[in-house]
This record gives sequence, structure tokens and C-alpha cells, in this order.
Amino acid sequence: MILAGQKTRSIWLEPDGWSVGIFDQRRLPWAVERLRLTTMEACALAIADMATRGAPLIGAVAAYGIALALRADPGDESLDRAFDRLVSTRPTAVNLRWALDRVRGVVTRLPERDRAAAAYVEAGAICDADVEVNAAIGRAGLVILQSLVAAHPGRAINILTHCNAGWLATVDWGTATAPLYMAHDLGIPLHVWVDETRPRNQGALTALELAAHGVPHSYIVDNAGGLLMQRGQVDLVLVGTDRVTRNGDVCNKIGTYLKALAAHDNGIPFVVALPSSTYDAATPDGAAVKVEERSSEEVRRLDGPDLDGTMRQIVVTTSPTANPAFDITPARLVSAYITEKGRVRDAAGLTAAFG
Amino acid sequence: MILAGQKTRSIWLEPDGWSVGIFDQRRLPWAVERLRLTTMEACALAIADMATRGAPLIGAVAAYGIALALRADPGDESLDRAFDRLVSTRPTAVNLRWALDRVRGVVTRLPERDRAAAAYVEAGAICDADVEVNAAIGRAGLVILQSLVAAHPGRAINILTHCNAGWLATVDWGTATAPLYMAHDLGIPLHVWVDETRPRNQGALTALELAAHGVPHSYIVDNAGGLLMQRGQVDLVLVGTDRVTRNGDVCNKIGTYLKALAAHDNGIPFVVALPSSTYDAATPDGAAVKVEERSSEEVRRLDGPDLDGTMRQIVVTTSPTANPAFDITPARLVSAYITEKGRVRDAAGLTAAFG
Repeated sequence: MILAGQKTRSIWLEPDGWSVGIFDQRRLPWAVERLRLTTMEACALAIADMATRGAPLIGAVAAYGIALALRADPGDESLDRAFDRLVSTRPTAVNLRWALDRVRGVVTRLPERDRAAAAYVEAGAICDADVEVNAAIGRAGLVILQSLVAAHPGRAINILTHCNAGWLATVDWGTATAPLYMAHDLGIPLHVWVDETRPRNQGALTALELAAHGVPHSYIVDNAGGLLMQRGQVDLVLVGTDRVTRNGDVCNKIGTYLKALAAHDNGIPFVVALPSSTYDAATPDGAAVKVEERSSEEVRRLDGPDLDGTMRQIVVTTSPTANPAFDITPARLVSAYITEKGRVRDAAGLTAAFG
Repeated sequence: MILAGQKTRSIWLEPDGWSVGIFDQRRLPWAVERLRLTTMEACALAIADMATRGAPLIGAVAAYGIALALRADPGDESLDRAFDRLVSTRPTAVNLRWALDRVRGVVTRLPERDRAAAAYVEAGAICDADVEVNAAIGRAGLVILQSLVAAHPGRAINILTHCNAGWLATVDWGTATAPLYMAHDLGIPLHVWVDETRPRNQGALTALELAAHGVPHSYIVDNAGGLLMQRGQVDLVLVGTDRVTRNGDVCNKIGTYLKALAAHDNGIPFVVALPSSTYDAATPDGAAVKVEERSSEEVRRLDGPDLDGTMRQIVVTTSPTANPAFDITPARLVSAYITEKGRVRDAAGLTAAFG
């Protein structure tokens, strides 16, 4: 997509043909800074320190981390060391291990002289596949947006989204954002309500993405969506997800459930965008998902520039806090799932698509 | 109640006998600073700029605003000008007009020389009545808390509240907080989940109140309450309100509706605390309430101390925003209303109590 006026992915090979470029997402949305990763360890640190984030994207960074390790030393010991270091950076992220397994599976059979080149090819293929998956999700969602436009001629359609399920969390397009970009590029008039998404305010990333692409949007506090729905100012709620269980329950950023309840109460479609890798057929339902409790510091402090542009960290509260990271939206509140296999309505459809 | 270690109300006459003292609530919870209001216009600005806030309290400030206007000029034109200026400061709060009507109704019949003194007496009576009303609401809510304790022996009961319906929003006790203070003082074990309440983070005021009074509590982001209810970690949702319409619809701080939906979805009682002055029998339902749209700056910027204690203002977003201040919780989602007349279940009960 577009950032700082340039068409870009969230990860790329530098012109030297071997080092890896990413945006420093710790600095976004306030500054667009690129990092050039030249070693496996630099990739590992970028993931661990959240300079790069988003399950699909950190898988891609880790894959290139293997390539960089093998470029320096193509031996088995180097390969194993790189795998172990990279897989430990974010132990709960399932895409990370999936991507590392995939690259190691390819190179481990090869003679040492061919390994680095093969790892680069595989990392590139992982990136390209992610882009195509998200584009396919976008096409599935576009159909929904087109039908909303047909139902509301003569005005922009309003989509509410929560958190950042955008291209910055993937290699390109994003999941929930892919249909929005495609619709905008086709000239479909739309406006996006961007939930702030406390405590980490990932809505600011979504707003940055939409602004850079020229998509009309408004940044709103997480409390506002219910009233907007009551007033008829939301035509669709469209979110990503961290995990969908076998019965169709949706584990996503804390607060998603509240928006699903409001959508249901107001007869507004609530649609979840997901790649097949996010469907967890092994977990029966949301009640079986262990919800990550994150640091209270995420609630208690907030970073941002002051009016002079100097980055500051302010104290939000000195009280005790709780900070659960996700909630569970029951399948009964979900109108549809959009995937790279198209649109499905329920758990039976997910099983048929992803089995 | 207690602030900075002192027992105090939220509004008082200064020792000079005519100027009006309040806390500058824009500076809370980070600094306890008092403001001395000496003119009607200062009262109007204090309300409009939210130096003072909370439906009952702004009614009291407005009442003293009439007294200050009449002290300067007791004529009819001065009275009308003060009324019009003060009533226009916050369009949604019904108490404002109620308090102004009450003071004007008393003074308009009097000769000019008696008006200022009568207005002071009436404003003082409004304050004293508010304290008694809130204490009565507290006694009505205490019954609910006692029944929850009986239902969950051996553990603290968990109450979630939104915004600040505390003593800082009234003259003393608060509405939603009155039962909490009374229960705590009786040794009933309780823990309060305090919604942050973006964009103005009035949850920080509630947390300040509870901390000053020693009530166990946790500050949570507005997104978290749904999951806590799903997990069984909330026994009661208890909120205040800016206006209850004839049919029982509840106009309250933006985001209240989302918590009411989650309470309903999880079988948790959702209770609204209100004085009779907040019951608006003249408005048929919530759809007829004009919701105040406030400045986008409230969303776009946030104040707080940095780690050295220096107050900073940071930019939260540079995107366009929308900032509706209230939402409407339909009467069907309300389990009970607690009032100075006791507990009632529905609009018929409200009409019987206040009609």
C-alpha cells in the first residue's frame, strides 16, 4: 500500500539484494522510519522488541532471518541456532513457527552452497502468498461493500473497524482493510470509523494507513460506536481476528465483543476477516481460549508527541489495573466470515472452506 | 466525602459569604486546585469548559451563577441574561434547566432588593437537598449490594461503573457511588471496576474518589468490561445518568450502552442511579434526546503528568474525529433504577415515584 507517499509493502529486500527492510512500528504513527536488517540477530530483536508486529508479518521477518543466518554461515549448526533464536522471540505467535518450519523444511535437504538462495526464495514466497491471501479476502469483502452501496445509493457507506487488521500487520493489503482499499480504489464512496483501541491505540495505525491511502475516516474513542450504530451511522462492522475456534467464536482485540453486541442490537452486519491460518479447528470454542493478560503498564502509561513534536510518555492512572488483551465474540453475533476462499456464514462454512 | 485528606463537599460558599468555591476538575486527579467563582460568567465558563461537571453539580453551580448575577444587578434583564447564558452551557443535562427554573421561580416574584439573598438561599437549599437525595439513593442501592453479598458469600462483590457518577459530580456522596461508600463503610467486601471513560477519562476521577475513601478498585480500559462479564468477574453494573426519559431510556456518558448490552448478554443486573431531578417526564424516549457533540480536541489530545510529574499534553491522533458525548441505553436493558424514593423496576415505577 502507500506510506509517506510511496507505494510499499511492510517488508522488502533492499537494493543490495540481500538485506531486509521494514518500518520501525514502534515509531509509527508519529514517525515513518525504516530499519535495514542485516543479520539474523537483528531480525530476532526487531520481532522481540515489536519494531515489527502482526502475526503474518513477523513470520515473514523470521523467514528472512533464516536466510540472513545462512548467508553468513550455511551450516546445520547455524540453521538450528537461527531457528531456535527466532522461534523464541514471540513464543505464542503461531505464524512464526509455521514460517520457520517452512523455510527450514526447504533448506535442510539442500547442499550448503544452495541454502541461502533457497531460503531467500522461500521467504519471498511466504511474503507473496500472504499478499495473495489478503487480496483474496479483499475481493470477498468487496462483494459485501458493493451490496451495501447498492442498498444506500447517493451516500458514502460507513464501516466501523476495531484495532489494526491492516497492511502494517501483514505484508500488504491487510485482512479487514483489504476490502476497504479495493472499494476506495474502485471509486466506491466510503468512510471508516476507526476505533482508538485502548490500551495500545492501534487505531492510530489504522488511521495512518487510511490517511496515507486517502480513505475518508474518523478516529473515535472505543465508547462511541454504540451510539453511531443507534443513529444509523454505521452500515457494517468489519474486524480482523487473532483466532477463530471450530464453532466460529472469534478471539480478537479486547472490545470487539462490545461492538458485536451493538451491531447485533441494531441489525448491522458484523463481519470477520481471516486467513485460513487463523482458523483453529483444534479448539472447540472461545471458552477454551486462554486470554493473554498483558502488563498493566500498557494501561497506565501512554506515549505520544507533545504539541512541539517531542515524544512524551504520560501517566494515565496510578490505580491498580487489569489488562486482558482479547475478548471472545460468540459465533451467534457474527454475520459472515470473509476468507481467501470467499465468504461463509457460519462454522459449517469455515469447516467446508478450511476443513 | 474526602479529598486530599479533608472532608469536603464539591461546592461551597467561600468565607466571604458570597463567592463560590469549587474544585477545578480539569486538573483532577493530578492536582487538587480550588477555583473561586465571583461572577455569573465565571460560573458559565466553569460549566462550559468542564472545570465543573456532573449533572447535579452543574445545576448547583448554575444556581449560584444566578445569585452572583443578581448580586451584581438584580433587574429582570440581568436575571434573564443570566438564565439564558447559563442554560446554554451544556445542552443535554436536564438538571441545569431544573435548577435555573427553581431559582428564577423564587426570585422573579421578589422585589429587586431581596433577589440576590433569596437566590443564595435557594442555591444553598439545592445543594443541601442534593446531599440528602444522594444519601437516599445510597440507601436504596445498599439493599442491592447486600443481596449480592448474600448470594456470593466469602468473596468480595464486583461492581463495574462507567464515567464518574461520584461525589465530585454531585454535591456529596454521588449517585452511583453512594451505595459503594455506604457498603464499604459497613464493612461489606467489594471491588469496583472503574471504566477509564474516554475521551475525558472521568474514570480517573472515580478512581481518585475510591482511592481517597479506601475502596478497592481497578482502573480498566473501556474495552475490557465485556470480557470481565463473560468471565463472571462482574456482579453488578451500576451507573449514573444525565437524563432518564419518560419510558425509562437512559442518556448517560458515551459507552454506557455498550456495557448495558454486555450486562444483558451475561445475565448481570444493570442498575441506574438517579435523583428525581434527572427524570425527564416531558421527553417520551431516548430517540427524542439531542446528543451533545463535543470538540474533537477532547479526542485528539490527552493531558497527564510525565514520569517526572510535569503536566504534558500529548497528541493522540491527527485524524478527523467525531465526539458524541452521550448514548442512549434503552429501558429494556435496565434491571432497576435506584432513586431517593427507593428502587423501582421500570418506567411505571419511575412515574409512580416522580410522576
